[in-house]
Amino acid sequence: MATPDSAVSTQAPLSFERHPCSYQHWKLTFDGPVATLGMDVQEDAGLAPGYKLKLNSYDLGVDIELADAITRIRFEHPEVHTVVVTSLRERIFCAGANIFMLRGSTHSWKVNFCKFTNETRLGMEDASAHSGLKFLAALNGICAGGGYELALACDEIILIDDANSAVSLPETPLLAVLPGTGGLTRVVDKRKVRRDLADFFGTIAEGIKGKRAVEWRLVDAVVPTSRFKEAVAKRALELAATSDRPSSGPGVTLNPLSAVITEDAYTYSSVSVAFDRAKRSATMTVRAPQTPVEQTPEAILAAGDQFWPLRCFREIDDAILRLRVNEREIGTIVLKTEGDSALVLGADQVLLDHAGHWLVREVIHFIKRTLKRVDLSARSFFAVIEPGSAFAGTLFELALAADRSYMLDDPDQHNTVHLSAMNAGILPMSNGISRLQARFYGTPDQVATVLAHAEPFEAADALDAGLVTFAPDEIDWDDEVRLAVEGRASMSPDALTGMEANLRFVGPETMETKIFGRLTAWQNWIFQRPNAVGPKGALTSYGTSDRAEFDYGRT
Amino acid sequence: MATPDSAVSTQAPLSFERHPCSYQHWKLTFDGPVATLGMDVQEDAGLAPGYKLKLNSYDLGVDIELADAITRIRFEHPEVHTVVVTSLRERIFCAGANIFMLRGSTHSWKVNFCKFTNETRLGMEDASAHSGLKFLAALNGICAGGGYELALACDEIILIDDANSAVSLPETPLLAVLPGTGGLTRVVDKRKVRRDLADFFGTIAEGIKGKRAVEWRLVDAVVPTSRFKEAVAKRALELAATSDRPSSGPGVTLNPLSAVITEDAYTYSSVSVAFDRAKRSATMTVRAPQTPVEQTPEAILAAGDQFWPLRCFREIDDAILRLRVNEREIGTIVLKTEGDSALVLGADQVLLDHAGHWLVREVIHFIKRTLKRVDLSARSFFAVIEPGSAFAGTLFELALAADRSYMLDDPDQHNTVHLSAMNAGILPMSNGISRLQARFYGTPDQVATVLAHAEPFEAADALDAGLVTFAPDEIDWDDEVRLAVEGRASMSPDALTGMEANLRFVGPETMETKIFGRLTAWQNWIFQRPNAVGPKGALTSYGTSDRAEFDYGRT
Repeated sequence: MATPDSAVSTQAPLSFERHPCSYQHWKLTFDGPVATLGMDVQEDAGLAPGYKLKLNSYDLGVDIELADAITRIRFEHPEVHTVVVTSLRERIFCAGANIFMLRGSTHSWKVNFCKFTNETRLGMEDASAHSGLKFLAALNGICAGGGYELALACDEIILIDDANSAVSLPETPLLAVLPGTGGLTRVVDKRKVRRDLADFFGTIAEGIKGKRAVEWRLVDAVVPTSRFKEAVAKRALELAATSDRPSSGPGVTLNPLSAVITEDAYTYSSVSVAFDRAKRSATMTVRAPQTPVEQTPEAILAAGDQFWPLRCFREIDDAILRLRVNEREIGTIVLKTEGDSALVLGADQVLLDHAGHWLVREVIHFIKRTLKRVDLSARSFFAVIEPGSAFAGTLFELALAADRSYMLDDPDQHNTVHLSAMNAGILPMSNGISRLQARFYGTPDQVATVLAHAEPFEAADALDAGLVTFAPDEIDWDDEVRLAVEGRASMSPDALTGMEANLRFVGPETMETKIFGRLTAWQNWIFQRPNAVGPKGALTSYGTSDRAEFDYGRT
Repeated sequence: MATPDSAVSTQAPLSFERHPCSYQHWKLTFDGPVATLGMDVQEDAGLAPGYKLKLNSYDLGVDIELADAITRIRFEHPEVHTVVVTSLRERIFCAGANIFMLRGSTHSWKVNFCKFTNETRLGMEDASAHSGLKFLAALNGICAGGGYELALACDEIILIDDANSAVSLPETPLLAVLPGTGGLTRVVDKRKVRRDLADFFGTIAEGIKGKRAVEWRLVDAVVPTSRFKEAVAKRALELAATSDRPSSGPGVTLNPLSAVITEDAYTYSSVSVAFDRAKRSATMTVRAPQTPVEQTPEAILAAGDQFWPLRCFREIDDAILRLRVNEREIGTIVLKTEGDSALVLGADQVLLDHAGHWLVREVIHFIKRTLKRVDLSARSFFAVIEPGSAFAGTLFELALAADRSYMLDDPDQHNTVHLSAMNAGILPMSNGISRLQARFYGTPDQVATVLAHAEPFEAADALDAGLVTFAPDEIDWDDEVRLAVEGRASMSPDALTGMEANLRFVGPETMETKIFGRLTAWQNWIFQRPNAVGPKGALTSYGTSDRAEFDYGRT
């Protein structure tokens, strides 16, 4: 039986598909090269009953709309060069994550909520770094906690100077938790606020406003109310002028995925997920294109969201997101592929040939972000490579993202894997290196060696080259794969999550991995601590007549 | 009242001072340039009752002796170039941290235990990287969990090939926790074991032996029993030949610190710690030398452990360690200094002039490691800079390590801080950069600017230069400092620990910070999870007739 995670126990399985026509919490408007995302959270439209989203506070539903809007701007509105993130409320930008939602949520819901919101904010920075789409936070009122963390994800922050509006991270003093959506990390690592000033800032609930907020680098500018709109509009256009995005559309429409979701399977056009609940595992099968993909930018534009690389990875992305929140007990994902590797390699070649075209660029970065979601998912991934599979190029990244891979070595059956230039660095992990570089961290020359290998790798060669973990023969195959999945299912899911989070990110760390490693791991710890979530914890007692009571022992 | 942390509730305050004459668990022997640390843990000599240290398993007491031995080798035995880490037991090297000790420990004891053992192992790597002291793990028998993590901290690992002895990290499959003493990080980041192989290795309790252990890079060599001793001896001498340490002694003896420890204070020769238990704070005062320190290597050798920089930082180190485990509720440490800054700067000049001398080098690295302990302590540090203080050079590093600093700005009283070349990078943080670089991460040119400032900084200048956080005048001083300490004491200690761990380590990450950030934070989370420590958790049920029962939901 499915065991959806939830903010409250009666929650139905959650979908991550949204459309601007039915946004409840954001208004997306366009004015030439500037789009405006206006936050206007509907108090009574939370994902679950039991809390009201007052003061532009948010829950996961609000963030799913935000993520949808940003993705649509990237694909559907190439003419947009700057996104202004602001609020439609007077004197309030955003009060942050809703505290009553957090209080009523299970531990795993809190963790998944933070993971998704972190991915959304990193997606904004990804658009800025790679797609010429700049983000301007126009803080027209008080901006607290997760509200300020949203602003921190923007390229620039303008704060209204109305003698009242401040930016703040009140989580530690008020709630005994961290600003865990990247806040602590971005304050010191992105905005480079001095660490002692950040320490002070992080302990005062009232926040900092006016000139001091600029001096401390917490915001880029403060502007009086009378000139605020004008200053935002002017700066938005200046940022837009730096963009290399097209000056006009059309973009490509992202249509609904039309997945068939049942108790036993998710079925998309190129992706399916079949559950084996007894084994707490699922098999995700990704199918290669059935015909050669469109070859020119014009044809790709015309194909739109049916261009296979985009369609396929939108489906993978959706499946991963659904699995995370709706299928908590599915601990192991077996990754398989099917079809003609040559057609995957053909698609890779098209992506590489036209990587400079705005739409192809968006597709490549979408693939990259989806693969990062796999890396960051608290699930074990085993790639299982059998005859008829299509682990080539971009799809081989799935095998490289897996914790292990098993490849059948049967001389009687043709079974190969194949690299392409898509494996050479264009799809980096969060730590900034390619999955091949991470894999061959101890033998870095092997990266170039395997990339130079123009032929497909048979199982024995793939094993020798270090591209797969194990290559059992047909006598051992069934048992070995079965025992691997069963063995994984027998272990503590928490220990596996911790182990995977440490082994997957070998080598360098980046601000992104600091957010998911250091910051998130500490936040998850705090989300378990009685001082935050116990009967007398600060998160529990916030907004009640009870005062938090702490165990003052330091750990 | 003091609230010592403990493995069991009746524990007396713990001392970290040891001497080889009274080691209970290790035998330290010398043979020319090779020292041998033979592990022979006494089952009944655990720090606390309630568990037996079977099979060379260890508790904090075993590790305190190990840390003592390594420090003594560095200072007392400059003629030692290689340390062989082995066991005096037949067929068993080390079974790792004692599980029954872990089970019976409070959460904070587990965390402190792991922190100290991590610091000890990083200290071994520090000696290898900076002091020409190599470590050779001679695994003469089975080597599990923390035993293998100890081996991983050595430069090389030789495993006996007796058809039985394996290396293993059974924590995840057996205990539902992580190999948290650096194990996961070192396997992939130091030994560069391929991540999928590490994944497999980390899930099999029985471990890996023989040729496969070498092929997977888990050990450097396997040697049959008949040739094991000879191979170890040969390789130890080869490693010794690479050292730049002296070929003969004498070293300097590290005498007991003779601290006076009472309910109200720790009193050392240059350091004192006074408790204000009502405010959950302590004031640590460090005193400058009273006369110029010895100027030549010969004189420094003759002064031995009374050379002020060594004496002073040994005392700080001891005080920090005691505070961590014996004073859990002391959440804030106010750092003060006293004395003549010129004498501190004079000592700095001696350290810099003779930094290449083996003993001075050891002193500098000892200071560095002590300051790292401050950075890594789960306590808030506020530097309070008043007239008569001596925050100069090396002692100013304490202010730079602090979360905040307050400096009295009173024109009627002389109050200055002063930098020296000791602030320029010779005392890096765990992340590899200096505390000035971390402080001025957003304004990197300021590092050179303040270092070029030959004069002392008056309070207003120090504030302008960004060297202190706040510089209240004498009217505000008392209230501002008092409110800062009281405000800190009112917040959740867990949230503060998490916040500090994120803000202190701005910028780059290293293997060392990955161990304390990513790995430790995940382990601390797991140490709170019911799947490990709940009534049916794996750590709870290990060695009993009960089988662990897991919540299989992934988080």
